[in-house]
Amino acid sequence: MPSRLNVAILGHRFMGRAHSNAWRQVGRFFDCPYEPVLKVACGRDAGPLSEFAHRWGWEETESDWRKIIERKDIDIIDIALPTFLHAEVAIAAAQAGKHLFCEKPFAINLTEAEQMLAAAQAAGIVHYLNHNYRRCPAVVLAKKLIEQGELGTIRHWRGAYQQSWLSDPSHPLDWKLRKEFAGAGPLWDLGSHALDLAQFLAGDIIRVVCHTKQFVTQRPIASNPATVGTVDVECAANLMFELGSGGIGTIETTRYATGRDNHHTFEIYGDGGALTWDLEDMNRLQFFDGAGDQSTRGFRSILVTDPSHDYVKNWWPPGHIIGYEHTFVHAAADFLAAIADPGTSSVTPDFSDGVRITQVLEACLRSTSSGAWESAT
Amino acid sequence: MPSRLNVAILGHRFMGRAHSNAWRQVGRFFDCPYEPVLKVACGRDAGPLSEFAHRWGWEETESDWRKIIERKDIDIIDIALPTFLHAEVAIAAAQAGKHLFCEKPFAINLTEAEQMLAAAQAAGIVHYLNHNYRRCPAVVLAKKLIEQGELGTIRHWRGAYQQSWLSDPSHPLDWKLRKEFAGAGPLWDLGSHALDLAQFLAGDIIRVVCHTKQFVTQRPIASNPATVGTVDVECAANLMFELGSGGIGTIETTRYATGRDNHHTFEIYGDGGALTWDLEDMNRLQFFDGAGDQSTRGFRSILVTDPSHDYVKNWWPPGHIIGYEHTFVHAAADFLAAIADPGTSSVTPDFSDGVRITQVLEACLRSTSSGAWESAT
Amino acid sequence: MPSRLNVAILGHRFMGRAHSNAWRQVGRFFDCPYEPVLKVACGRDAGPLSEFAHRWGWEETESDWRKIIERKDIDIIDIALPTFLHAEVAIAAAQAGKHLFCEKPFAINLTEAEQMLAAAQAAGIVHYLNHNYRRCPAVVLAKKLIEQGELGTIRHWRGAYQQSWLSDPSHPLDWKLRKEFAGAGPLWDLGSHALDLAQFLAGDIIRVVCHTKQFVTQRPIASNPATVGTVDVECAANLMFELGSGGIGTIETTRYATGRDNHHTFEIYGDGGALTWDLEDMNRLQFFDGAGDQSTRGFRSILVTDPSHDYVKNWWPPGHIIGYEHTFVHAAADFLAAIADPGTSSVTPDFSDGVRITQVLEACLRSTSSGAWESAT
Amino acid sequence: MPSRLNVAILGHRFMGRAHSNAWRQVGRFFDCPYEPVLKVACGRDAGPLSEFAHRWGWEETESDWRKIIERKDIDIIDIALPTFLHAEVAIAAAQAGKHLFCEKPFAINLTEAEQMLAAAQAAGIVHYLNHNYRRCPAVVLAKKLIEQGELGTIRHWRGAYQQSWLSDPSHPLDWKLRKEFAGAGPLWDLGSHALDLAQFLAGDIIRVVCHTKQFVTQRPIASNPATVGTVDVECAANLMFELGSGGIGTIETTRYATGRDNHHTFEIYGDGGALTWDLEDMNRLQFFDGAGDQSTRGFRSILVTDPSHDYVKNWWPPGHIIGYEHTFVHAAADFLAAIADPGTSSVTPDFSDGVRITQVLEACLRSTSSGAWESAT
Repeated sequence: MPSRLNVAILGHRFMGRAHSNAWRQVGRFFDCPYEPVLKVACGRDAGPLSEFAHRWGWEETESDWRKIIERKDIDIIDIALPTFLHAEVAIAAAQAGKHLFCEKPFAINLTEAEQMLAAAQAAGIVHYLNHNYRRCPAVVLAKKLIEQGELGTIRHWRGAYQQSWLSDPSHPLDWKLRKEFAGAGPLWDLGSHALDLAQFLAGDIIRVVCHTKQFVTQRPIASNPATVGTVDVECAANLMFELGSGGIGTIETTRYATGRDNHHTFEIYGDGGALTWDLEDMNRLQFFDGAGDQSTRGFRSILVTDPSHDYVKNWWPPGHIIGYEHTFVHAAADFLAAIADPGTSSVTPDFSDGVRITQVLEACLRSTSSGAWESAT
Repeated sequence: MPSRLNVAILGHRFMGRAHSNAWRQVGRFFDCPYEPVLKVACGRDAGPLSEFAHRWGWEETESDWRKIIERKDIDIIDIALPTFLHAEVAIAAAQAGKHLFCEKPFAINLTEAEQMLAAAQAAGIVHYLNHNYRRCPAVVLAKKLIEQGELGTIRHWRGAYQQSWLSDPSHPLDWKLRKEFAGAGPLWDLGSHALDLAQFLAGDIIRVVCHTKQFVTQRPIASNPATVGTVDVECAANLMFELGSGGIGTIETTRYATGRDNHHTFEIYGDGGALTWDLEDMNRLQFFDGAGDQSTRGFRSILVTDPSHDYVKNWWPPGHIIGYEHTFVHAAADFLAAIADPGTSSVTPDFSDGVRITQVLEACLRSTSSGAWESAT
Repeated sequence: MPSRLNVAILGHRFMGRAHSNAWRQVGRFFDCPYEPVLKVACGRDAGPLSEFAHRWGWEETESDWRKIIERKDIDIIDIALPTFLHAEVAIAAAQAGKHLFCEKPFAINLTEAEQMLAAAQAAGIVHYLNHNYRRCPAVVLAKKLIEQGELGTIRHWRGAYQQSWLSDPSHPLDWKLRKEFAGAGPLWDLGSHALDLAQFLAGDIIRVVCHTKQFVTQRPIASNPATVGTVDVECAANLMFELGSGGIGTIETTRYATGRDNHHTFEIYGDGGALTWDLEDMNRLQFFDGAGDQSTRGFRSILVTDPSHDYVKNWWPPGHIIGYEHTFVHAAADFLAAIADPGTSSVTPDFSDGVRITQVLEACLRSTSSGAWESAT
Repeated sequence: MPSRLNVAILGHRFMGRAHSNAWRQVGRFFDCPYEPVLKVACGRDAGPLSEFAHRWGWEETESDWRKIIERKDIDIIDIALPTFLHAEVAIAAAQAGKHLFCEKPFAINLTEAEQMLAAAQAAGIVHYLNHNYRRCPAVVLAKKLIEQGELGTIRHWRGAYQQSWLSDPSHPLDWKLRKEFAGAGPLWDLGSHALDLAQFLAGDIIRVVCHTKQFVTQRPIASNPATVGTVDVECAANLMFELGSGGIGTIETTRYATGRDNHHTFEIYGDGGALTWDLEDMNRLQFFDGAGDQSTRGFRSILVTDPSHDYVKNWWPPGHIIGYEHTFVHAAADFLAAIADPGTSSVTPDFSDGVRITQVLEACLRSTSSGAWESAT
């Protein structure tokens, strides 16, 4: 019988739902060292918060996050808030000794990112940054194949994270379109995911050149659609980079790619093989084995639902695919394992990865201003 | 605050897990008229049953299903048992006034199927047969497009349900390979799903000709692998059929299709358009609109994750796919709605569909013996 | 410097063009033992024939095919005529010692087919039946992989040849819709191709059950669209079969598959692997290698443009695809090689394959009448 | 009966073959105002030249290209030579009044490119630069859809031209790896194609930033594999650009993309729709129509073989695909039409496009040196 850990969640919208689901599901499908208890949900809108807490089974609600952090009975703080709120909460929670499960993008700038990491390290807590796509079984397999040397030396990374929800100019100005709340636009929101996978799979990015662009700069304000406000983040960002290992790459991020709902994709070419993946078809990995016979080589479409793969055996038999939110369940499982056994378990990405990603993102912004290459280390 | 309905589940293996998950998840993602309470889990192996109940939160366990049926506090009996046990349980439960959520294949033969339907109708209970793929959003969209006339008159159905787990001759003889427990082989297990979708989308099948084949007839007995037993169900079954509407079709079912894990697929061709779908890529529907311009027509790959689709809005934003078990959650939501409002809601397929599918399946078996066409009505 | 062989072509429409192109192109891309000379084109419509001959460089025209067969200077008779004319021409030409390059479907019935074969064998000429898809490099690779044992024992063949040109009910009644000219409908026209590939790759078909259907039976007469005539061939034909090797299969043929222009496809499943192919994407073969590692197996998309493949090295570098008519060029190359060296070369399919295919096709028609399985040997 | 134009070809390797085929085939499939006569083939290796001329039916051979240009009976000079030879030949031929059919890349640098254009314009000849992919029917359709406004304002171009033939480090140093002969590496060879399509479909590129990289710099010399020589062109080049219309884009070019034989691909996103294409599947265009119903939108896979498309009706019925070399035949047809009617016909790209592409390419090289954005106009 596992002992219990009390979780407090901050935020109750899209990410609040996905995280709540993870805490509820993890013990059903994974053998966890702890049972997470959905203890308290925190937010400022009493009505929606109450509805959220009731629906997901959070035992209590609270409007002041500082009170939660003061509570002795809370073990885990789950930060499912807009980016600009991460640093203050995370630092205070770390100082109070809470383990941190933090949504991405990590921080609004590198200064805050470094403060968050410093606080987490000083406190000795377990800290996790939720770039959840690392835990798609197909991405896990990609990592394994690369570590086994199947791709050889990586020469090219070709990535993109394309959405289309801003193609419609009547879409209102929301917090993701305001620099003060979001840090930046798709570069921060989508690019952080894309860069996380690039560095996870292909290693450190050492320099970048970035190109941002404005397409639609005035949008209706949701609370009063007759008025408009200014989009002060970039509408799209393209970047080129160089890897420490000598490979090169590109990443495109946009919310104006008509026809793409959630098209997070990469192609990786090494001198020994190649891989491609696409989040919209997230259960598959395409693998080209360069060592194969010349006449029968080809990209192999691997449906990563075989129980031999990490995480997969905990779900369903082969050919029964999993969905988006399962990656959060995987993260929760690994996070609980890391708390139980900090010596031998680890959960990544963590706040040090958050700092690294933010370094690259800030280099991109500098490059946008300078029109030139910038160091990303 | 919805009132509660107590659920008892019979069976605790693959389907027991998938059903338990549905009862747990349905209230988080759907607005249900009732909250299902995971009251009691029933099975004969005390150890695994206890572990199952604990993991999924079933409040009690019980080894004798008859005792459960006698309990006044149980509202819903969830039958997640091997096929040969369905009839006895379902009939007794219906007679006791319990609503029935019954796994497929429906029954071991038509006689039992008809008895099950008669009992359910006599009792006036809500009865549901879990051909869950009807509730893939892509299949729901297929139904809608057909009902809107987008395909015109259907000429061709080309279906298959192909798996590969018996390609390995060392796979042991399990209950699915024994006629007394399973009714038949892939025809029953996979064919019932394929026929359900065919009749759901294209209408009644009126006659069939069927071809079954044995490939591997002796397999090790799991409990004693040094000994072998006889596979007395077909290894594969192909069938051709005629629809009441004048269309024609084929379905192939097998567990020997090396390379296919769970390849349930259909192609539908009407005089106005066409559709194709594949369970391994279950979030997509391919639609050919014959009314389009001659020079820009083509199969359109619809990622059915837009909130305009049934069920989808309850999950995640566009482009965030769902997985296999979500279809069970959809079924649970509709089942609870049907209990709340039997007058205006309905949940299909129900036991009358079960009888129809079993009629077609039995016609297939007769055709296998006669070597000729058999009426399926 | 190769010596020359004089070719006479009978027919000057779609197939006349494709064959003319083959004779013109073969010497440019292949090292042939003979140079084919486009000597005389034969047809009954003087105007179109003359235009055809001029365009393609046929040196002469002739309206009476018997005169051509009498000519001593003609070495090869290329039969690009409607099916019902094949037998009389082929038999006379064989008796005159001409080598025969014959378009498919082979013959209007088995009796004529057998007479054609007997005449060809008696004359000792080279005879080729143009099921050209055997010479798609991807199909050649499929054959090679099967012969190497990569698929093991074949269990399933799932084939189809689907077109859509009759979905439009105003399409006129042409010769392909009249039994006296065509033998049968899509079963003959498309099914002969599908059956040729099935027997080429998976071996002899020993029994069949077939299902034909009428959808649109009255169509406008092209020469007088105000009047209608009767379609007296089947509109669609589905069939199931058993292979001599123990495998089973299905084939669907139709001209009513809205959305499919020329969708000739097969899936082959053996106990060791699987293959799929589709004519609309004819340069690719999908191969599942069952011997691979469980966790990285998948269908491999082989772009069959590597020079290691038969025929391919004669065209372009890797990744530069070939088109439909190239298969005819391959056939011409092999046909010329077989004339040069009948002892060691062979060109298939030949008239004996034509007899075999016609046996299967006639068994299908018998089954349509009997409603039961029929022997195909 | 069309009158004749005499063609002289310079070069007899890969492009010599592809061009010869075009001259031979064009009159068979297209109604041309002139019949091209394969008059003389020019090259320096007497043996291979003779074999080439014989195989393709060139009436004469010649070792000195200046003599050909002096001949009064030559109407068309077909330049199928390595890049560094283009300028001298093209300028002399233009001055002699010959029409020019010139292989790409256009020129070794912008100076020569401008001289070539000036000479062609001064002479008033028809000049064509063979970026043949403009004449893939799928690309023609893309152009038409964009011109009809189906994509609206273009926001994103995402392109790549990836090959893999240099993944093998033992591949010898050939002329394409030497700056003096090739101008540059894949940027020039592949990038010129990619940029041509980008500018053809999305309009002028006004500024660029480019990133090149060396992977393997020493390679065996073909004539003496025991010795090595230096690759002095880039191994790969990535670039980002801005369109005059306000859109942005990326292009990657490499010969180190293991698994990609000839992967020339683009994705175009406008505010009204999107298109994608891939040369390895060149008969298809993927089109997303943003104007469609929200719930049934998707990328539509258009098999561009319907006779309603330009060029297609001259080949085969729907569903019968064409291959790589057909694009050269299309170019030859348009080139001959432009000669016949220079007033109303035009053939593009021409030398002015060649200058524009070279401007962009040189801006890329400058950017590689400067590490910053460079104007491309």
